[in-house]
Amino acid sequence: MTDPEKENVEIAEFGLGHLHVEGLQLVTYVNNDRYCAKDLVLFPKQTCPEHLHPPVNGEPGKKETFRCRWGTVYLYVEGEHTSEIQGKIPKGKEEYYTVKHEIILNPGEQYTIPTNTKHWFQAGEKGAIVSEFSSTSRDEADVFTDPNIIR
Amino acid sequence: MTDPEKENVEIAEFGLGHLHVEGLQLVTYVNNDRYCAKDLVLFPKQTCPEHLHPPVNGEPGKKETFRCRWGTVYLYVEGEHTSEIQGKIPKGKEEYYTVKHEIILNPGEQYTIPTNTKHWFQAGEKGAIVSEFSSTSRDEADVFTDPNIIR
Repeated sequence: MTDPEKENVEIAEFGLGHLHVEGLQLVTYVNNDRYCAKDLVLFPKQTCPEHLHPPVNGEPGKKETFRCRWGTVYLYVEGEHTSEIQGKIPKGKEEYYTVKHEIILNPGEQYTIPTNTKHWFQAGEKGAIVSEFSSTSRDEADVFTDPNIIR
Repeated sequence: MTDPEKENVEIAEFGLGHLHVEGLQLVTYVNNDRYCAKDLVLFPKQTCPEHLHPPVNGEPGKKETFRCRWGTVYLYVEGEHTSEIQGKIPKGKEEYYTVKHEIILNPGEQYTIPTNTKHWFQAGEKGAIVSEFSSTSRDEADVFTDPNIIR
């Protein structure tokens, strides 16, 4: 990382005050009017809460590809519920984690999440590093299922 | 890399028949209607010939960010000519390498090339690995300065 990038590392705790349970660490390499690329770093079992990327200013919402680089990621998207999911929903937050179609990503594996689709994800026991390739990122437009979340 | 990706490694020799001089090796991770992500692997001193990405079907042409991961990349774009460039233009090809504004990228450094802008690049003595984040890739639309090139 270059110095400007080091200053640009983002800690997202979503206004919930328990970063190690629900939170995310991000490095954004580029985010312009056409595309975006980030690396996401997750602590062991750390969870990014359920959200979706709605249309913004007449443009379709963010579409994104998660490519696992290190560790394991349990990703949940809309679709048929997986009978016994590997991820653990944070205690007391069951109502805010509604999609349960499980995708497991190990290093070198990736999955593309369509626009306007609910998703959440959790790192495995070791944590995880995930590259995110996407259309333009507009975090302030994200819609979270948990009404307590402030982005 | 997963097996489908291994089958998807691309060797671009541009119809010139001297891959180690002018050529490129690519792995495409994703290329959809919104964005694209690839890794480019270059042999020592291997050169990607000068080209630009024009508008396609009323959409602005490809915009791309090169992020050096390993080795050194000498990148040339439109703008004031650098007085003594580090890159070596392939012999006899001088007329097809017209832009000489030099940007040197070492690991962790990156540069974004605007749409519709001529550029070419060459790896340093050790070769290079470069991540390319971009808008949708439509290689068949690329315009090369060298009329002998077939993409």
